[in-house]
Amino acid sequence: MSQRKTILISNDDGITAKGIKSLIEVAKQFGDVYVVAPDSPQSAQGHAITLEDPIRIYKTDIFGEEVVAYECSGTPVDCIKIAKHLVLKGKKIDLCVSGINHGSNASTNIIYSGTMSAAMEAAMEGIPAIGFSLLDYQADANFDGAKAYAQKLIAEVLENGMGNANLLNVNIPQLPADQIKGMKVCRQAKGYWKEDFLEGKDPMGRAYYWLTGKYEYQDQGEESDIWALENGYVSIVPVQYDLTEYSSLDSLQKLEKL
Amino acid sequence: MSQRKTILISNDDGITAKGIKSLIEVAKQFGDVYVVAPDSPQSAQGHAITLEDPIRIYKTDIFGEEVVAYECSGTPVDCIKIAKHLVLKGKKIDLCVSGINHGSNASTNIIYSGTMSAAMEAAMEGIPAIGFSLLDYQADANFDGAKAYAQKLIAEVLENGMGNANLLNVNIPQLPADQIKGMKVCRQAKGYWKEDFLEGKDPMGRAYYWLTGKYEYQDQGEESDIWALENGYVSIVPVQYDLTEYSSLDSLQKLEKL
Repeated sequence: MSQRKTILISNDDGITAKGIKSLIEVAKQFGDVYVVAPDSPQSAQGHAITLEDPIRIYKTDIFGEEVVAYECSGTPVDCIKIAKHLVLKGKKIDLCVSGINHGSNASTNIIYSGTMSAAMEAAMEGIPAIGFSLLDYQADANFDGAKAYAQKLIAEVLENGMGNANLLNVNIPQLPADQIKGMKVCRQAKGYWKEDFLEGKDPMGRAYYWLTGKYEYQDQGEESDIWALENGYVSIVPVQYDLTEYSSLDSLQKLEKL
Repeated sequence: MSQRKTILISNDDGITAKGIKSLIEVAKQFGDVYVVAPDSPQSAQGHAITLEDPIRIYKTDIFGEEVVAYECSGTPVDCIKIAKHLVLKGKKIDLCVSGINHGSNASTNIIYSGTMSAAMEAAMEGIPAIGFSLLDYQADANFDGAKAYAQKLIAEVLENGMGNANLLNVNIPQLPADQIKGMKVCRQAKGYWKEDFLEGKDPMGRAYYWLTGKYEYQDQGEESDIWALENGYVSIVPVQYDLTEYSSLDSLQKLEKL
């Protein structure tokens, strides 16, 4: 590569998670790394932003002297906004990477994901962005396979761009690095969370409900991200933020006559 | 209509907001209304859900005896999950309406919106859903125009469905009802928030940052929601939650060879 790149990193599991440390170790090889990440876990925060409260940032050296890192009191999307507009004000950001998330963001999980919302926010501001997620929720998950593929993708994207896309949702199966079969470019699988609520009583005797459930796939198509992951591939889905369902426009024209 | 319908209502401004009261007044004419809404304002919560904490709901009679209403400690998306899986367990929901939001959810604002995320959650669970937003952020905004168009749309959708769509983003201009020119079926306009942060010091002398900014439209196309609203129309955008950018798939194929 011709010159050192500027890479912004965030996540939603919080700045002390093993996943973001793994991603920083990879990204450091390619350029100057700036980290702005939540000071506490922010999973399933979606595209939440903080409007009603002030946001605080504190510099931290937990990643060593060569990494400029801040922990932030806000959401993952707040972190990207603070990074672009304060920490890196006026500086060109070559790539934003988010994650590596502890747990899948494949299929419609992307919609709930703080990791992917951070990446989407960067993309909306014109920064090429990739969200990485490993299909392992454990705090001490093994990120070796995820790191190997993050390394390949970051190298490729910094050198040659990402085609017509500017935002990728990358999920990595929970397999040893040498058992991952490669990468598949996919579409988002259809599916949804079938909820259940654990009911209980708190120490004051008041009822509470705790969200649980399991993911129902409605889609086993070979071109879907779920198929790729279940068959040992890394899934790569290009992501858009124009939510217009163009195929429905014609069928709604009659509403204009009401 | 042949029989009374079951209508679920939520919002993100909280259960005491004028906007949800206005929407309930409209919906009551068409069926049995069930409300599960946040117990406090949840604007800009995006598609956040509560995983790390229990959720509580409390019954309330603030909308009178004929409306079954609960205030909920969770996010707008939590409210829909609780409504479907606990409050209305097993009951068919004919329509979910969310709002009326105090402030625009046109263009990419949909991505940050708790009001639209509640509607999207319902749609993902197979319930036809509409999010309504008025272009007025004030707590005491005049909802007369918004109510008139919500009435037209709810009547039409309950009677005849919503074409191929199952989720609509409806924004209403801040105009007297008789000055609104009608409804336009639109696409989501391109645009983004150009952030700024108000910097200050708290009573302990620590720096804080408060998100502010203004919306930059990159799009004045006559088929966009922003154009419709600026020209006195109600905008209706059909919304999808398949975020795959299909047009980029081919250009990414080379990644499979890495």
